[in-house]
Amino acid sequence: MAIHIKGGTLVTAENEVRGDLLIEGEKIVAVGEKLDVPAGAETIDAGGCYVMPGGIDPHTHMQLPFMGTVASEDFFTGTRAGLAGGTTMIIDFVIPSPQQRLMEAWKQWREWAEKACADYAFHVAITWWDESVHADMGTLAKEHGVNSFKHFMAYKNAIMADDEILANSFMRSLELGAIPTVHAENGELVFRLQQKLKDMGITGPEGHPISRPPEVEAEATQRAIRIAQVLGSSLYVVHVSAKEAMDCITRARANGQRVYGEVLAGHLLIDDSVYRHPDWDYAAHHVMSPPFRPKENQEALWRGLQGGSLQTTATDHCCFCTDQKRAGLEDFSRIPNGTGGVEDRMGVLWHAGVNSGRLTPSEFVAATSANAAKIFNIYPRKGSLSVGADADVVVWDPKATRTISVKTHHQNIDFNIFEGMEVQGLNRVTLSRGDLVYQDGDLRVEKGRGRYVERPCFAPYNQAVHTRNEATKPSAVERKKAAAE
Amino acid sequence: MAIHIKGGTLVTAENEVRGDLLIEGEKIVAVGEKLDVPAGAETIDAGGCYVMPGGIDPHTHMQLPFMGTVASEDFFTGTRAGLAGGTTMIIDFVIPSPQQRLMEAWKQWREWAEKACADYAFHVAITWWDESVHADMGTLAKEHGVNSFKHFMAYKNAIMADDEILANSFMRSLELGAIPTVHAENGELVFRLQQKLKDMGITGPEGHPISRPPEVEAEATQRAIRIAQVLGSSLYVVHVSAKEAMDCITRARANGQRVYGEVLAGHLLIDDSVYRHPDWDYAAHHVMSPPFRPKENQEALWRGLQGGSLQTTATDHCCFCTDQKRAGLEDFSRIPNGTGGVEDRMGVLWHAGVNSGRLTPSEFVAATSANAAKIFNIYPRKGSLSVGADADVVVWDPKATRTISVKTHHQNIDFNIFEGMEVQGLNRVTLSRGDLVYQDGDLRVEKGRGRYVERPCFAPYNQAVHTRNEATKPSAVERKKAAAE
Amino acid sequence: MAIHIKGGTLVTAENEVRGDLLIEGEKIVAVGEKLDVPAGAETIDAGGCYVMPGGIDPHTHMQLPFMGTVASEDFFTGTRAGLAGGTTMIIDFVIPSPQQRLMEAWKQWREWAEKACADYAFHVAITWWDESVHADMGTLAKEHGVNSFKHFMAYKNAIMADDEILANSFMRSLELGAIPTVHAENGELVFRLQQKLKDMGITGPEGHPISRPPEVEAEATQRAIRIAQVLGSSLYVVHVSAKEAMDCITRARANGQRVYGEVLAGHLLIDDSVYRHPDWDYAAHHVMSPPFRPKENQEALWRGLQGGSLQTTATDHCCFCTDQKRAGLEDFSRIPNGTGGVEDRMGVLWHAGVNSGRLTPSEFVAATSANAAKIFNIYPRKGSLSVGADADVVVWDPKATRTISVKTHHQNIDFNIFEGMEVQGLNRVTLSRGDLVYQDGDLRVEKGRGRYVERPCFAPYNQAVHTRNEATKPSAVERKKAAAE
Amino acid sequence: MAIHIKGGTLVTAENEVRGDLLIEGEKIVAVGEKLDVPAGAETIDAGGCYVMPGGIDPHTHMQLPFMGTVASEDFFTGTRAGLAGGTTMIIDFVIPSPQQRLMEAWKQWREWAEKACADYAFHVAITWWDESVHADMGTLAKEHGVNSFKHFMAYKNAIMADDEILANSFMRSLELGAIPTVHAENGELVFRLQQKLKDMGITGPEGHPISRPPEVEAEATQRAIRIAQVLGSSLYVVHVSAKEAMDCITRARANGQRVYGEVLAGHLLIDDSVYRHPDWDYAAHHVMSPPFRPKENQEALWRGLQGGSLQTTATDHCCFCTDQKRAGLEDFSRIPNGTGGVEDRMGVLWHAGVNSGRLTPSEFVAATSANAAKIFNIYPRKGSLSVGADADVVVWDPKATRTISVKTHHQNIDFNIFEGMEVQGLNRVTLSRGDLVYQDGDLRVEKGRGRYVERPCFAPYNQAVHTRNEATKPSAVERKKAAAE
Repeated sequence: MAIHIKGGTLVTAENEVRGDLLIEGEKIVAVGEKLDVPAGAETIDAGGCYVMPGGIDPHTHMQLPFMGTVASEDFFTGTRAGLAGGTTMIIDFVIPSPQQRLMEAWKQWREWAEKACADYAFHVAITWWDESVHADMGTLAKEHGVNSFKHFMAYKNAIMADDEILANSFMRSLELGAIPTVHAENGELVFRLQQKLKDMGITGPEGHPISRPPEVEAEATQRAIRIAQVLGSSLYVVHVSAKEAMDCITRARANGQRVYGEVLAGHLLIDDSVYRHPDWDYAAHHVMSPPFRPKENQEALWRGLQGGSLQTTATDHCCFCTDQKRAGLEDFSRIPNGTGGVEDRMGVLWHAGVNSGRLTPSEFVAATSANAAKIFNIYPRKGSLSVGADADVVVWDPKATRTISVKTHHQNIDFNIFEGMEVQGLNRVTLSRGDLVYQDGDLRVEKGRGRYVERPCFAPYNQAVHTRNEATKPSAVERKKAAAE
Repeated sequence: MAIHIKGGTLVTAENEVRGDLLIEGEKIVAVGEKLDVPAGAETIDAGGCYVMPGGIDPHTHMQLPFMGTVASEDFFTGTRAGLAGGTTMIIDFVIPSPQQRLMEAWKQWREWAEKACADYAFHVAITWWDESVHADMGTLAKEHGVNSFKHFMAYKNAIMADDEILANSFMRSLELGAIPTVHAENGELVFRLQQKLKDMGITGPEGHPISRPPEVEAEATQRAIRIAQVLGSSLYVVHVSAKEAMDCITRARANGQRVYGEVLAGHLLIDDSVYRHPDWDYAAHHVMSPPFRPKENQEALWRGLQGGSLQTTATDHCCFCTDQKRAGLEDFSRIPNGTGGVEDRMGVLWHAGVNSGRLTPSEFVAATSANAAKIFNIYPRKGSLSVGADADVVVWDPKATRTISVKTHHQNIDFNIFEGMEVQGLNRVTLSRGDLVYQDGDLRVEKGRGRYVERPCFAPYNQAVHTRNEATKPSAVERKKAAAE
Repeated sequence: MAIHIKGGTLVTAENEVRGDLLIEGEKIVAVGEKLDVPAGAETIDAGGCYVMPGGIDPHTHMQLPFMGTVASEDFFTGTRAGLAGGTTMIIDFVIPSPQQRLMEAWKQWREWAEKACADYAFHVAITWWDESVHADMGTLAKEHGVNSFKHFMAYKNAIMADDEILANSFMRSLELGAIPTVHAENGELVFRLQQKLKDMGITGPEGHPISRPPEVEAEATQRAIRIAQVLGSSLYVVHVSAKEAMDCITRARANGQRVYGEVLAGHLLIDDSVYRHPDWDYAAHHVMSPPFRPKENQEALWRGLQGGSLQTTATDHCCFCTDQKRAGLEDFSRIPNGTGGVEDRMGVLWHAGVNSGRLTPSEFVAATSANAAKIFNIYPRKGSLSVGADADVVVWDPKATRTISVKTHHQNIDFNIFEGMEVQGLNRVTLSRGDLVYQDGDLRVEKGRGRYVERPCFAPYNQAVHTRNEATKPSAVERKKAAAE
Repeated sequence: MAIHIKGGTLVTAENEVRGDLLIEGEKIVAVGEKLDVPAGAETIDAGGCYVMPGGIDPHTHMQLPFMGTVASEDFFTGTRAGLAGGTTMIIDFVIPSPQQRLMEAWKQWREWAEKACADYAFHVAITWWDESVHADMGTLAKEHGVNSFKHFMAYKNAIMADDEILANSFMRSLELGAIPTVHAENGELVFRLQQKLKDMGITGPEGHPISRPPEVEAEATQRAIRIAQVLGSSLYVVHVSAKEAMDCITRARANGQRVYGEVLAGHLLIDDSVYRHPDWDYAAHHVMSPPFRPKENQEALWRGLQGGSLQTTATDHCCFCTDQKRAGLEDFSRIPNGTGGVEDRMGVLWHAGVNSGRLTPSEFVAATSANAAKIFNIYPRKGSLSVGADADVVVWDPKATRTISVKTHHQNIDFNIFEGMEVQGLNRVTLSRGDLVYQDGDLRVEKGRGRYVERPCFAPYNQAVHTRNEATKPSAVERKKAAAE
């Protein structure tokens, strides 16, 4: 059955224009004014609303086994919560244990994700190195639509990638036309600071941000940028949280380097005072890495989003309930790191971003879907409203309001970091590949309807990296070997 | 008659995709694969080629009366040369003399431009201030489609705008939803340096760049940025030529400010050694302001274009022939400032930009048309390949080569600053509002077929400026007047 | 009679060392261990104390006629308060009205200053320009020991210097071997913001900082730096208060430019929340220009002092009592700008600077006396402990504490911006040219004992500016004038 | 016998003043005008000359075993060459092999240095880590006057220190009051680039700079700075050669961090075109790490020296003769790294620094001796002209000229990177601890007369680091453990 969305303002990363959308099956089939609508098409009245591509959250961790427990949100509940909030696709992570074959971990995650009710893809983490890793990266890139590999520069003695692993993997990624991504915190320094704090008797959540100061993030960000620069690869930095780290990206981009930055909704809105809250549970629920930052960083991150230092927004959705958090009651470094947000990202970004004049509606679309789609090479299938694109669409009512609360959210976690925040601007309708999955509070999803999205390598968006490397290759100098004669 | 461009790769600022274009009358009517082509349509085979929006040169001065003479290129010859090189629209400048009514100057320029054979629009310069200027800005913005006003911070004792004029005009522009633009050089300092050089006996063209060093441009750029920031307006900086000036824009943008930068093809490719050439004519033909810069600036400008500090490319096309240049034989400050380029911009940018891996094809389109169209609010009518857009299109053959020369160019000037440069990548075909005006060397234009393009105010691209000003208005603090009681 | 200061730690800008000082008449005559002390010398036991050069406050305005009133502190009371706090010299300002001959104003100020009880000198302000100003600058520099000229970039329609005046005066200063100084705020923008605020009905002191935001200071700072750079002169920026302004100095210095920055004790310690205080008088007493800034600026200024972006500390001591401040009850722009501090500067800087680990004792001396002495070319006569230097000396007890209060201060003003601050580290003894003027709370000064200090031009500290200009002069290019033949 | 240096201009880091010096034994005993000179004192006429502290070269490698050979210059010949050029002290390096006890290496180097004819000290390198290294650092710091420890971030698979070693050693240094220093190049990246170049068939010296680009240095510099910042220690970066690396120091210092930078005379004057010289020997003689850099870096380094980003100048004097260099004929990565300069540093710096107006004479003294003496805590014994200081003095004739050449130099190496450079400004006389060791070309030195100089820990110059760490210690937050109850 066809769906006709009419009377709204179509917003893409490119521009805003009055117009209608016609959807048939899973695809957008017509865009514009005065469309030729087939009889029997369902009509959605978008009067007074914006019609936009559904959100892509490029950073989630559903049912992740981590720090001795497993994230409470699974691929079904997580994608469902996303759809409720207007996010129609996630990119999650396959994280092999050191020494585990990548292909084995890959299969495991693919299996877990089968119950998803929105589309999804996977970044794959490189946590160790040998010939099999090199080979499996090739298999994943060439046969399974993986065009991004993740590296944790933190978590010493666990999954931390040192410079040798980074260099190996960045070079391999470049060769494959994939993009390396990094969690940028210097694991050695975090380890020292954790020890120092414990030596001082600081064991509560207030120690968490002190053990991971902005400098630790800035160091790793800068290092990853330099490694990418020297080896000629592009780079995507996940969850940039600190001004100092973002400044590294700004400088690199101003220098013409192909570096992209992602920012989390939480880092844009919440500051580090939460860690000094008298309620341990409250404080612990904010423990994630990188941590929330002093207030001035938030304004800086917004400016980075406006000015082009940061391209994408995400959540690092990784839920742990109160009883899971309490594993770290005696030691903040054992509190499972992570919190929720996949449902709220679109709403809080519109409210704090567009209503405040920080972002135009087009910039909102760029930051919530189009840029991620371009970087990870699924554009214009995702992130656009073009003919032939997947019908992942939201109808956005800029007047509607909602008060965010754990009581009403769909996320499988007993806490919400945006609790009590009243946002104006909401999706009244969500379509996922042509299915009307959410309308005015009514969420109708089917387990397993989500599909795995292959992401081809050698994205046009990044192609200049390859041309550039070719065009600037050094060549040997002819000289007379005076010495030898 | 319809035109069917088939078998090419469609490139927009958004992405590259295989597909065809169908054009009827002046408009693009269909885009995609397997189009429904009417019988009798003319077919253009774009196999192996890119199909892109025609270029927009947002900075030209056709037949400008300046420094005691008149630019040799008129609106007919200039737009014709543009079409030959793939540029299908120019934005020229109305420059009233101080004390001249804006409306009077406006009428004069509109009349001059009637002979144009490609589309055009006008920025209007604010060279003085009184109530009539305030009023005329309103008339132009509201009734004549002018959404940008230009300010010369150079040319003391002539058309220089001081801080008072800048403040008046920026505030008025903001109110009207127009964007202020600046030629950023500190006129006072240029004046002093010219005097100092003459006192030293330096009268040749080598004195020109010394009298206008990068610092002079950086000062004015930073000042304009601060004035815009404090008054809450956006800003467009024309012909950014020096790293120091661009750095000001980079910092402002990283700080979230809505500032845009334009770079000239010449500044990207030519360095200041030309002024020390032994042939006076050769040196003098390069006299323009800002001047060509030391080599390191070129790489910096390219990086700015890649990284997003600069949005648009232009030429400042303002032709003076050798006999005109010789007015300054005894005094470099009397050499008419300006040179050509409208015909060559697309070719040299593709060659030095895309072939070198500095820009992707999509970034090329953004830099040569789409960004200018967005900033000056004629997108997607211009700068896109969307259905309903003006059929200003080029078919670009990335394998074709050309050696640029005064002997073969269509520009009405007896010199070419790119003389002898061999470029790879050329427009095989140019369409202007649906007319096939250029094909494989054959240029068929009609005087006066160009149309004036109205540019509405309050561009969606800039709308955040207005929302932001509203959202951050200060309010008075309630206090007890302890003192008075 | 000789004075023997023994058993202390001698601190200079260079280093700290255990040692004694011997003073005879007005001079230091011996420094070191085991001095040959004449019989009958008075002994001051400096055990546990630091012995340092007395403070130099390079920025005060005693009995200044300003904004319709006259500063309440005169040269006698002001220098007396300084001595009580360890400051043994001030550099005040001669400020001619526009059109007033410099020499006339100069004589007036010299006369007013005769009652001073500590040494003093004068910067002279350039508030207008004609041939007489050019001539008088020469007279002052060559015959009266004036080696610095001040320029107000703020105060439009009053004493504001535009680019033309700045260029004239900077060039003249360079020629004379004097250093230009600037009060850096863009007067045009301040004027606009004042109007805008009044239009909004904001008339209280909370409007003051909004009318002079950091950007307004940063603009003027950058402009003055560029003018100095282009004309080849050095530059001293008074009362740097905002991070953005300081960053301009940091960049200029990193670029090798000879630019110096001064910071006020108040700007280092007080933030802009004072303007939102419910008590009008309290808020109004903080009205000065530039205003106190948001908190993050204070940490930035401290870092600038540590890192070498800022060289000197001052107070801009310019006192107005409550009844004077109330002239602006209905309009914040009429509140006389200024506050006190000459007595407290040394104490608050030691406390917040040295005790906190921001500055070493040597850096404290550099920042409170030696650097000012070097820049204004009275070193080592002032600002050092070398043999032959004026015996302007303090004995500083790092354990002693004091609570700053209007009730106990010696300043002639009924308010103290540091009210209630408890500082640790105090001068137990002050010597002024060999006279023991203050000891343990006992202040013994004589009106008129202060002397005018001549400051020769062409300071060795700045001499590189002149060598550099000479070494980098441009020269004309030999070329064939093809044209002329 | 006493020596009376009379009639000159005394130059220190503080100022310039006309005056005489009186030396008795090893010490300066009087400074000033009209000194009381004992009968029989030898008089040195310094008319028209500057009298300055002798140079300190804080970075030399005499007779270093390295890359399969041993540096050709030993402690005798090397210190002799230094004295000829006005350098009266060197700080060399003890470099233990991984697994070698520090104390063992220390003894070896002390023994080698016994033949020195000028004073010397040692930095000690930390090339590995275990409890013995921790212990030996303590012994060296507390019992042997070592207050600086060096870390090579380059040379993978040899002496490279990874983040874990850096963190261990920086923390230990901080505890001991010593300063960590780094050779900042990312060893992993150098290793990769060397491999890549060899894979491309690039084996000549032109490959050397390509394998160690500025980015590789900038990465390591920034990383070391961040590690020092996070752990609270100060940092000294040796041989800063690239603008990008220096910028890291500039930013850190502007941010208040205690970071110091050293620059080599060679990096200030020579660019990377030397590696493309057709004569292999010529090119190979310039192989050192970091390599010589593209020209724009030199101007940047000078500006850093002027502006305070860099504090000291050195040479990294490490000589290899042609036959030694030829070990790398087939593979540039086997060319022993290093070249000479200890004799020429003072002359080339004066010529290119002072004569050009980049540095004042006082800044020259700061950069060539005083700053090193302060940082490494031997001030004012070295680097000053104060009473009680070691009589390490040069009489400098600013008019004298010399053409630098391997034919006339005293260095034990068959090449000179400054060959043919004519410098103006030379030491006519060198005194070393009171001995007249060089006068007008006559060099009279005695093997073994040099003495080891102990450098105490906890330099006053760095003391703020310790106060700051104490003043900003975090403390635990009291919270109710709501969760647990």
